[in-house]
Amino acid sequence: MGVSLPRKDLFKLPRGVIYLDGNSLGVLPKGAAARAARVIEAEWGQQLIRAWNDAGWMDLPRVVGDRIAALIGAPEGSVATGDTLSIKVYQALAAALKMRPDRRVILSDSGNFPTDLYMAQGLIGTIDKGYELRTPAPEDAADAISEDVAVVMLTHVDYRSGRMHDMKAITEKAHAAGAVMIWDLAHSAGAVPVDMAGSNAEFAVGCTYKYLNGGPGAPAFIYARPDIIEDVAPALAGWLGHAAPFAMEPGYRPAMATERLRVGTPPILQLAVLQEALTVWDGVDMDEVRAASIALSERFVLEVSSRCPDLTLASPADPLRRGSQVSFAFKEGYAAMQALIARGVIGDFRAPDIMRFGFTPLYLDEADVIHAAEILQEVIRTEAYLDPAYQARSRVT
Amino acid sequence: MGVSLPRKDLFKLPRGVIYLDGNSLGVLPKGAAARAARVIEAEWGQQLIRAWNDAGWMDLPRVVGDRIAALIGAPEGSVATGDTLSIKVYQALAAALKMRPDRRVILSDSGNFPTDLYMAQGLIGTIDKGYELRTPAPEDAADAISEDVAVVMLTHVDYRSGRMHDMKAITEKAHAAGAVMIWDLAHSAGAVPVDMAGSNAEFAVGCTYKYLNGGPGAPAFIYARPDIIEDVAPALAGWLGHAAPFAMEPGYRPAMATERLRVGTPPILQLAVLQEALTVWDGVDMDEVRAASIALSERFVLEVSSRCPDLTLASPADPLRRGSQVSFAFKEGYAAMQALIARGVIGDFRAPDIMRFGFTPLYLDEADVIHAAEILQEVIRTEAYLDPAYQARSRVT
Repeated sequence: MGVSLPRKDLFKLPRGVIYLDGNSLGVLPKGAAARAARVIEAEWGQQLIRAWNDAGWMDLPRVVGDRIAALIGAPEGSVATGDTLSIKVYQALAAALKMRPDRRVILSDSGNFPTDLYMAQGLIGTIDKGYELRTPAPEDAADAISEDVAVVMLTHVDYRSGRMHDMKAITEKAHAAGAVMIWDLAHSAGAVPVDMAGSNAEFAVGCTYKYLNGGPGAPAFIYARPDIIEDVAPALAGWLGHAAPFAMEPGYRPAMATERLRVGTPPILQLAVLQEALTVWDGVDMDEVRAASIALSERFVLEVSSRCPDLTLASPADPLRRGSQVSFAFKEGYAAMQALIARGVIGDFRAPDIMRFGFTPLYLDEADVIHAAEILQEVIRTEAYLDPAYQARSRVT
Repeated sequence: MGVSLPRKDLFKLPRGVIYLDGNSLGVLPKGAAARAARVIEAEWGQQLIRAWNDAGWMDLPRVVGDRIAALIGAPEGSVATGDTLSIKVYQALAAALKMRPDRRVILSDSGNFPTDLYMAQGLIGTIDKGYELRTPAPEDAADAISEDVAVVMLTHVDYRSGRMHDMKAITEKAHAAGAVMIWDLAHSAGAVPVDMAGSNAEFAVGCTYKYLNGGPGAPAFIYARPDIIEDVAPALAGWLGHAAPFAMEPGYRPAMATERLRVGTPPILQLAVLQEALTVWDGVDMDEVRAASIALSERFVLEVSSRCPDLTLASPADPLRRGSQVSFAFKEGYAAMQALIARGVIGDFRAPDIMRFGFTPLYLDEADVIHAAEILQEVIRTEAYLDPAYQARSRVT
């Protein structure tokens, strides 16, 4: 039986803050600090090098991968963790291109998060054999899958608009055209139910510092469909993806399972904190999370639409067609978001004019979103955003 | 004026342990746990997403890079941090090959750490244009630099034997043949004086969990010579290497400085702990570290050679030709190392028969190495290694 939501008691939430930015950096789970202290003082400090065996460090990437697998409908052993999402995109793309040697097109969409497109551009430049990156508008992506496409790489939930692609239908279309399918789950893991196995996609990648609350710079993950893993030629052929890392052989031999997508020495401190963060999902039913997310976001849209007519909904109005976030376009969006943050309601801004709000039912309730809408109304009504202090741009928003 | 060595008061050393494995995982600096707690509780927990600006997270990779630069004779702004050493090897290699488009040979040596060779193999497979990886014996590497070599990639200090390449002479030879030079400083940074600028090499890479005490899985670093950075085409074209990451442009435009070798979201927790760990080097003169390292290792060689005639020195006898470690070959090396560890003297083992001992003058003194040699003598004299408990192999040694 699922636990009831929200589970605010499992997190340390700052007083006086309504946090609608868990889609950018999730909040702090209560156990994280104690776990970090244990890894540092007891394991690193006292066990030193022996901790790689005795404290289970060497197995941590796999153990954490299995916990993530359970959240995205993937079987045990199919998810490797480590590195950053950008690196995992590169690994998946390079492997996918090798699987379709006669094709030269990577298909994505123009709404994809920039680093996914940049990593594709970097890979294309590295191989330098005339590969092409096509980026139609998100709504045209499915129709753009043609028989010259080697790999379709899409982010499931759009970072700007929250618009959600139909994973199963697009994967089927990609496969019908003979293409390999890669899904970026950055805004999906822990946000919406994901059925990787059911989708039949070859690869998925994602990050863990958003809805999975792994902390700033938490390790990324990569899923590979178990039946294709033996065809995956690792571009980033690191020693920890080797079949026998400590045999120190001169030649690379990939490990038999998804472990071949591990690369270098794992970031133990961040992995341990992530493992601790993932315990908040014990007993949580993703369908209940989804139902709560829809209720929260629908309520927020309703409140904001009635209170702030100058803001335009920039997300699909149908909650089934978006992830766990809602965006509004507003000409003074940047400054309005700064004014809102100064009043304790934290969302974020994405160029050129998007005010973005994430919904995280583990630590957010209906009163929070209503109160957030009230404060937003006050910011807009009083034109608080005209204050020069809110107009000055900082680097990260 | 330099501070006097050792500086044991800056570290938390476990009681009853003589640690001769700082070349694998450095010990815990006293400030690390408090720093991690502050990042987790005050920054992540309270500031949340705002910490990217307000707590200086976004600048951390550069700030930490500058601190490392000072330890390897590199100018400010020339070192980027993040990812793992394997990833940094790939970045340097891919960039170097692009700089010599008409050549097809990567020259390394057979003693190089496996992941460097594996990453080269993975890159060669990805590009798939007939590149060749040549790995002569370490002592033949310099003579193997020919005019068809695109890039020479060597590890400065050999992980097994401690044998140190002549950085300046080999770099000159590489350049005379028209090749790009990459140095792996895994066993050099914080271990021996390094003069990156003086060497004139194009690239260097390294890790920070050995002599720099950054903790398990601490971020890696990469140096690029400032005058060539504009010719560096990033293979791993991540958003944080972009000239304007938060403009969310569809096309990749590399940042102007070494920052173009950043990739994804930085591992803030590990970077902060590393930054704290690097403070132990304040006021430390690398020439004094080197003098102390030579004194310690010479004493250890003398003691072990006279006490344990069955062990064969597997490092250069001339201390000027080795880094800050000494290895001995012994048929029962694996089990003997386990027996030694059980008695509180921690070194490590590298296949097939190498017992490896690292010297870290910041937290090691002459009494430590003499006592370690005494205990080693007792293990060998009593054949303690024949105990079946020490013969059983674990994964990491």
